[in-house]
Amino acid sequence: MKATNIQWHAGLLKRGSRWKRLGRKGCTIWLTGLPASGKSTIAAALEFALVMRGIHAYRLDGDNVRHGLNSNLGFSRRDRAENIRRIGEVAKLFADSGCITITAFISPYIADRENIRRIHKETDLAFLEVFVDCPIRECMRRDPKGQYRKARAGEIKGFTGVDDPYEAPMLPELVIKTAETDVGECVQACLDLLASRKLIAIAE
Amino acid sequence: MKATNIQWHAGLLKRGSRWKRLGRKGCTIWLTGLPASGKSTIAAALEFALVMRGIHAYRLDGDNVRHGLNSNLGFSRRDRAENIRRIGEVAKLFADSGCITITAFISPYIADRENIRRIHKETDLAFLEVFVDCPIRECMRRDPKGQYRKARAGEIKGFTGVDDPYEAPMLPELVIKTAETDVGECVQACLDLLASRKLIAIAE
Repeated sequence: MKATNIQWHAGLLKRGSRWKRLGRKGCTIWLTGLPASGKSTIAAALEFALVMRGIHAYRLDGDNVRHGLNSNLGFSRRDRAENIRRIGEVAKLFADSGCITITAFISPYIADRENIRRIHKETDLAFLEVFVDCPIRECMRRDPKGQYRKARAGEIKGFTGVDDPYEAPMLPELVIKTAETDVGECVQACLDLLASRKLIAIAE
Repeated sequence: MKATNIQWHAGLLKRGSRWKRLGRKGCTIWLTGLPASGKSTIAAALEFALVMRGIHAYRLDGDNVRHGLNSNLGFSRRDRAENIRRIGEVAKLFADSGCITITAFISPYIADRENIRRIHKETDLAFLEVFVDCPIRECMRRDPKGQYRKARAGEIKGFTGVDDPYEAPMLPELVIKTAETDVGECVQACLDLLASRKLIAIAE
């Protein structure tokens, strides 16, 4: 191996040729919303719909991130910001690889989400913010993990929607109203968004 | 959306069906070796060879990780361990998605690498450790970034191979001798390894 080869890798395979050869385009679909608003359900169903069409898609959510990459983070304001920052950076890598990356995290603060939008924009990757909009009373009624109940009883501190704010997106690429729409319709709206940005083919 | 849907996602798409539908198998190929041993060059050439065959492969290296995900880490012993830990977790996610994940980091400590092997094994993902074996005199001769020179002059502290140890793998899946072998042969050895584990088809 010659020393002249060492720098060779930088220009070897740019994103455009990678995506073209793989027949894919990567991006990040960022679902944000209150606890129990339906983010994980939609993310899983969207991932399913894409993969069953043969499209390389992957979901990042609490299940595969909190126990692994972010297992050394707690729930302080600072750790939460770092949690979202790392997820944003990983989503960006997946997107760059040619994967349709779907994230499902409360991600309650505008500033954190805007940072992720920025790092995607800087490297010319699409960042599609999807507001999973569900009235808090409906989220509380669902409360599948009993967390709202515990938070209102004071057993959990700093719970989004109870004693910590949720800052709704100002200009999301898509709003999904999960109290009024079934999963199929929510997923279709995401697929339409992807198609409108030419990230997937309509008839694919 | 019914509350009964909330837990639906866990069993929706298991790894086996995902990989089958995408026609892929994910894994992590972990290149380890001294600075300037040739890790990045081989990683880039291997990624190129795979992608040009239409195989979803992705490379994690200093270029895309140190400035992003791990931009808040320095070079202390503790930060180095955290750097490698995070990379291992991200590689595992990529592998799970069905991607052949290629990492190129010095990763000098056995304990850190064994942790990554363990988290892959726990979730039944292949972890292929490749020792990029190059005599230190040859690495020093190459020294493309002048780092060995600076480290020997005392301008860089804790530099692997000079005043910080490199712990070579005991039982790597593959050893590549970059001082004796050209890039093509090194890449072929990696492809043969992948094929022998049935992670890619031989004739693919």
